[in-house]
Amino acid sequence: MIHVALLGFGVVGSGTAEVLTQNKAIIEKKVGRPVNIKYILDLRDFPDSPFGGLVVHDFNTIVNDPEVSVVAEMMGGSHPAYDFTLACLKAGKSVVTSNKEVVANFGTELLAVARENGVSYLFEASVGGGIPIIRPLREDLASNNVTAISGILNGTTNYILTRMDTEGASFDEVLKDAQRLGYAEANPAADVEGLDAARKTVILAAMAFGKRIDPNTILCEGITKITTADSELAKEMGYAIKLIGYTTRVEGKILAMVSPRLVPLGNPIHGVNGVFNGILVTADMVGQVMFYGPGAGKLPTASAVAGDLIDVMAHTPAGIISPVWVDAEPAEIADPDTHVCRHLVVFDTSDESAGHLKTVFGGLNAVHYTEGRFSFITEEMSEGEVKAKIASVGYPLVTRIRVL
Amino acid sequence: MIHVALLGFGVVGSGTAEVLTQNKAIIEKKVGRPVNIKYILDLRDFPDSPFGGLVVHDFNTIVNDPEVSVVAEMMGGSHPAYDFTLACLKAGKSVVTSNKEVVANFGTELLAVARENGVSYLFEASVGGGIPIIRPLREDLASNNVTAISGILNGTTNYILTRMDTEGASFDEVLKDAQRLGYAEANPAADVEGLDAARKTVILAAMAFGKRIDPNTILCEGITKITTADSELAKEMGYAIKLIGYTTRVEGKILAMVSPRLVPLGNPIHGVNGVFNGILVTADMVGQVMFYGPGAGKLPTASAVAGDLIDVMAHTPAGIISPVWVDAEPAEIADPDTHVCRHLVVFDTSDESAGHLKTVFGGLNAVHYTEGRFSFITEEMSEGEVKAKIASVGYPLVTRIRVL
Repeated sequence: MIHVALLGFGVVGSGTAEVLTQNKAIIEKKVGRPVNIKYILDLRDFPDSPFGGLVVHDFNTIVNDPEVSVVAEMMGGSHPAYDFTLACLKAGKSVVTSNKEVVANFGTELLAVARENGVSYLFEASVGGGIPIIRPLREDLASNNVTAISGILNGTTNYILTRMDTEGASFDEVLKDAQRLGYAEANPAADVEGLDAARKTVILAAMAFGKRIDPNTILCEGITKITTADSELAKEMGYAIKLIGYTTRVEGKILAMVSPRLVPLGNPIHGVNGVFNGILVTADMVGQVMFYGPGAGKLPTASAVAGDLIDVMAHTPAGIISPVWVDAEPAEIADPDTHVCRHLVVFDTSDESAGHLKTVFGGLNAVHYTEGRFSFITEEMSEGEVKAKIASVGYPLVTRIRVL
Repeated sequence: MIHVALLGFGVVGSGTAEVLTQNKAIIEKKVGRPVNIKYILDLRDFPDSPFGGLVVHDFNTIVNDPEVSVVAEMMGGSHPAYDFTLACLKAGKSVVTSNKEVVANFGTELLAVARENGVSYLFEASVGGGIPIIRPLREDLASNNVTAISGILNGTTNYILTRMDTEGASFDEVLKDAQRLGYAEANPAADVEGLDAARKTVILAAMAFGKRIDPNTILCEGITKITTADSELAKEMGYAIKLIGYTTRVEGKILAMVSPRLVPLGNPIHGVNGVFNGILVTADMVGQVMFYGPGAGKLPTASAVAGDLIDVMAHTPAGIISPVWVDAEPAEIADPDTHVCRHLVVFDTSDESAGHLKTVFGGLNAVHYTEGRFSFITEEMSEGEVKAKIASVGYPLVTRIRVL
């Protein structure tokens, strides 16, 4: 018998209890022994839940119980989730989590503490919900140097952008719908401003390059400034606007950033719509592989938490090999201005500006003019260069969106 | 130092030597010690290869060398690949392989022998080339009951079907091109008749349901009868024709089959084109996840072989947990006639047959009539039922293609 404690009985926590109960037979077959949920930590009581009797309010009950060898942390937020995780690892308990905030902020330390204590810290559910991505990066693609990862990592924003694209609806309209349907929170800032995607991007960058960057310091642009006009223009040009978490190396330094991007038709993530997520990994040996599925939701996320639980339980007490992260030194982090890509640029100017723009930008691609707005896609150039050119032409800038 | 032997120095074998050499630093960091390719078994000599000095012709040199703890089998074909694998496992050496024929034919026995000898038998490269699919099924999705898997599992046939779809070219024309470009073999039977996809489908079914079915006994239809007219008709109706390996349960019994299918726009594998593969897994907790990438090729396949090698080397001597397969009993295998789906049916008859067809088939969907050919899509019905109805109407059947 192996005893598990769940920290948090919200959406993911209750989903995990459901998965462990409903699929008990196949799970125990894979673990090799009976699995028992011994405690569920939550501030609330759940008298109507079949799991209500397992609820405890004092974390010490769990951390001090030597019978509990594995803990699933699904509380969300940095504190006390980080503190409880640290205490569990130090007490020789393996921890699995869906908490991207804790992994992105404290992953380096928690992985090291897990290693020191001969236990595991796993976080498949922290990126892409139910989509397998962390373990494939760590194991299946282990022989590769990853060169880039581009991901649609946030279902809320992808839902909004998809509806703007297909219906021509405005950001504000669709956000209200998304809130009503439960796809967006009452305070949607972490989603629509890109911070949620930034945390996931930082986790993917650390899996790819072994270095963690503070998610609060990366270039992070959300989707609040995307207009219906942008969306329509992109569509006419054969692109879809997606919020993309992107990481690569620039001259050996690590770049991690989140921003809207024009994704070309033909790119495997172009067709990733609605609340779905898609993650495209480019690596030197395999080329490109893409992972697609539900990036959030109760049971999909719980599926990933339970997958990690099975892995760690099947390997208890031998332990499994965790990735080694270090925190990136400032000198190892690329200046976003060095990032090179093509850019959609829209100026508020007449079509007589073509000559001047061509002189400044060199090649203008997919040139488009409607009602005083002059749009084009640049050649590949760095952020620094495109910003300098935009400043130098002097026309009012309507928008600039990077091309993936 | 850990010593590896490679069996076979063809496309995948030489690719694996290249991956292990070119990415030696990151691989050794993950394995935790130096990795040495000690032998390469091949009938041929490779005097011009940098690995030429490692070539041996006698398998006994490898199996009798206690220093060799891990072997990668990339010979292809059942014999002697199976025999060498068995001998290595019995000698206490873990084996990883890209050989779908051996895994599909002998996987049950080889996994059992590996377990008895405390070693591993891994085969990520046997399905989907470089795409992570076997390990995600085994680990990431371990808490799920898989309900169905649909895969584009053969790059050669997908290349042919994609060109038929986009260019309206004929099967024979495109096959010749594919042979010239090296995407199809001189004898393309195993690809175009579906046997390669059947082997991979059997492996996926065994991963999903724990039961191996003989790949030579499953319903297996290739793409040789697909015409340009079929392809055009499908396209008009909003579908793409793909060769689909499909496995599910029907009333508790396992169904595994390979056939052309109409894949609707909106299905995540609809847009999987050219030599790429895509595998859609449906499972009770996660919903649907899709894995996409290069299904064949030297370095992509070698990436998967090397990933398995790293996994097994990092866990030597502790070992990793292999899946348990048993051979399916005849009573556990579904009769393909019980498989239920919609069907595109094309009769050589006039459009005046509509009334009669409606009487026999019930609802006719997407009805289409051109030049004496009457086409429609049926409601969901079993193979047995649709075949009986087709026989009963008495019009000459032009084609029947299942809808995914």
